Amino acid sequence: MNDFIYHIPTKVYFGKGHLQHLGDELRRFGTRVLMTYGGGSIKRIGLYDKVVAEIRNAGLELFELSGIEPNPRIDSVREGVRLCKEHHIDVLLAVGGGSTIDATKFIAAGACVDFDPWDFLDITKRAPINNALPIVDILTLSATGSEMDAGGVISNPQTGDKIGRVAAPMLPKVSFLDPTNTFSVSPYQTACGAADMLSHIFEEYFTTDKDLFMLDCFMEGLMKTIIRYAPIAMREPDNYEARANLMWASSWAINGFIDGGKQQAWSCHPIEHELSAIYDITHGLGLAIITPRWMKYCLNDTTVDRYVQFGVNVFGIDASLEPMVIADKAINMLSEFLFGTLALKSTLPEVGIDRTNFAHMARKAVQGDVLHGFVPLRQTDVEKILEMCME
Amino acid sequence: MNDFIYHIPTKVYFGKGHLQHLGDELRRFGTRVLMTYGGGSIKRIGLYDKVVAEIRNAGLELFELSGIEPNPRIDSVREGVRLCKEHHIDVLLAVGGGSTIDATKFIAAGACVDFDPWDFLDITKRAPINNALPIVDILTLSATGSEMDAGGVISNPQTGDKIGRVAAPMLPKVSFLDPTNTFSVSPYQTACGAADMLSHIFEEYFTTDKDLFMLDCFMEGLMKTIIRYAPIAMREPDNYEARANLMWASSWAINGFIDGGKQQAWSCHPIEHELSAIYDITHGLGLAIITPRWMKYCLNDTTVDRYVQFGVNVFGIDASLEPMVIADKAINMLSEFLFGTLALKSTLPEVGIDRTNFAHMARKAVQGDVLHGFVPLRQTDVEKILEMCME
Repeated sequence: MNDFIYHIPTKVYFGKGHLQHLGDELRRFGTRVLMTYGGGSIKRIGLYDKVVAEIRNAGLELFELSGIEPNPRIDSVREGVRLCKEHHIDVLLAVGGGSTIDATKFIAAGACVDFDPWDFLDITKRAPINNALPIVDILTLSATGSEMDAGGVISNPQTGDKIGRVAAPMLPKVSFLDPTNTFSVSPYQTACGAADMLSHIFEEYFTTDKDLFMLDCFMEGLMKTIIRYAPIAMREPDNYEARANLMWASSWAINGFIDGGKQQAWSCHPIEHELSAIYDITHGLGLAIITPRWMKYCLNDTTVDRYVQFGVNVFGIDASLEPMVIADKAINMLSEFLFGTLALKSTLPEVGIDRTNFAHMARKAVQGDVLHGFVPLRQTDVEKILEMCME
Repeated sequence: MNDFIYHIPTKVYFGKGHLQHLGDELRRFGTRVLMTYGGGSIKRIGLYDKVVAEIRNAGLELFELSGIEPNPRIDSVREGVRLCKEHHIDVLLAVGGGSTIDATKFIAAGACVDFDPWDFLDITKRAPINNALPIVDILTLSATGSEMDAGGVISNPQTGDKIGRVAAPMLPKVSFLDPTNTFSVSPYQTACGAADMLSHIFEEYFTTDKDLFMLDCFMEGLMKTIIRYAPIAMREPDNYEARANLMWASSWAINGFIDGGKQQAWSCHPIEHELSAIYDITHGLGLAIITPRWMKYCLNDTTVDRYVQFGVNVFGIDASLEPMVIADKAINMLSEFLFGTLALKSTLPEVGIDRTNFAHMARKAVQGDVLHGFVPLRQTDVEKILEMCME
């Protein structure tokens, strides 16, 4: 069991009646606000108008950066940095999902340095992130957990890279989590978000690191929460209970609490990032396709106990069955959930991906060496996992 | 489902190899440190010497307040406040269990005002707590959760009061949670700590407020953790896994996370505080005696569902049984755990309490009116619950 440091000072306003605190929270950091968002969805649901009204009422000066993409790109970050410097921005307000918040994190860091923000991500440079402008966010999609963690992932279409980075100064200061802001999320995006959250938990749960039993219980509770409520939110988009459970689960699936000092590398995320770097598919969808195959590939006599615990505690599989039977059943039940209940596409060809870049993507996923995850993976292992995703 | 604000900026160093950070963390707040502790136990286990060495190595100036009692008293708080003012203390370092940390919280607040610190607690005054000196703590007992919350309870033998108060400025800035510092905790104190933690969870779990399913899962996970590891820690005092799980569970049982906006008053804690205010028994022991009786008293057709969920999910009782059968079984299994497995005394006479003060204690517990908890309790209800504790 490893030592760890737990420190999440983000202040979270959870619920539907908190937006009137937005002005006061922003003003703690200054008067010049850069609001960042994606496409038009926040205007369609009326959130944009409400936010602007709060900012105006608070007497703050508002600047805007719109058009942040899903799988956000370094060019959006560069544009945000330019605006921060030009307008002497005091505080960033990200209104959107993980993509908007991720981009905003690197804008916040980039505004404090003189070099190109891609240098934070470029694996040959990894420029230090010592400062960032304060970030406040209003979450509109339950998925990435970016609202309560210090990480983000940025794509660079010029280099074909999609790279993540974690740095404490990028942790949001204040997050507004209002489940009603996710009522308009489509069944498909709700499903992708659920797959993303589940993957965050699997990456910590399927590990050979010695674990705190307490955290196992919490992870299993998060999985059960997502499995219970994602289908409800898909059927009844304005079911508050479902949206609230998914929203709070998204934050706790990746804010660091459940890792409890585990050091092992993640597996499915690095592989998926290579897929979406080239093919620009939705992150959660890519994870859904990869995950059950990765589980199958890693299952052996040494690892089977973890699958048994997962199958029994999350899916309620009869604990008296043979371990390998439980493990197979658990993987099948997960597949049935992802591709049946959530109706996500289940193979790479269905999302337009063929074998062309398998070798290239696999090599990048393991960074030319070994991915030291649940089961260590070399390039050839990743290629085999991708091959399993073909049908 | 109620809105809530989640905000716990406490930085937690969890594990056995972090003490070398103590000097740096204290120095963030200044150079003049008042270390507070209880009896001699921190000297016996060698912790005192290690802490003093770290403080000296960091070049900080050390002052001390020792002798803080279990069920800490206002006179210790007053003495601490006097020392803070006399020596212009910058930061408080509490080394001990919940009693030491609780007292230190009110010392920290009292050092910032000119009036008597009892005014913070006196229910006729409730003086505002707007500031407090920064608090760092090193936990030596897993029980109260004081290391990660903003509350504390102080006794006043002159008035016969034992009163709690929560105020954000009293939240510890940094907590060192090293499970090895609890290796020397006796089986009896380990059991009392477990009973205290369980009660913190029950007070939030047994509620008629609409709940987040996710938090139910977490609460059930915490209960299972405590039920699993308390007996192990009693048998094998230096079992790191057991001590680590109990320690982290103690913090999460009461740091506010699991309440998720629930507004209902607590029940067993107010009743127990009246017991220990007069009889000075260990808080966790008092809670253990009261809890199963309170559960029995509150069980009816309206409340039974919660008992069923508890029995099935925590004790694994067969869900196909009749609800009332499951509920009774669950209460019996809890009693068996507290009085059998944990070997705690099970009745008030066994701890030297007779009926003399029942009416008085019951009236104070409900503050002369109604305790609006899981089931509303009037003075006569509390008297009946106390009567049930007689055998």
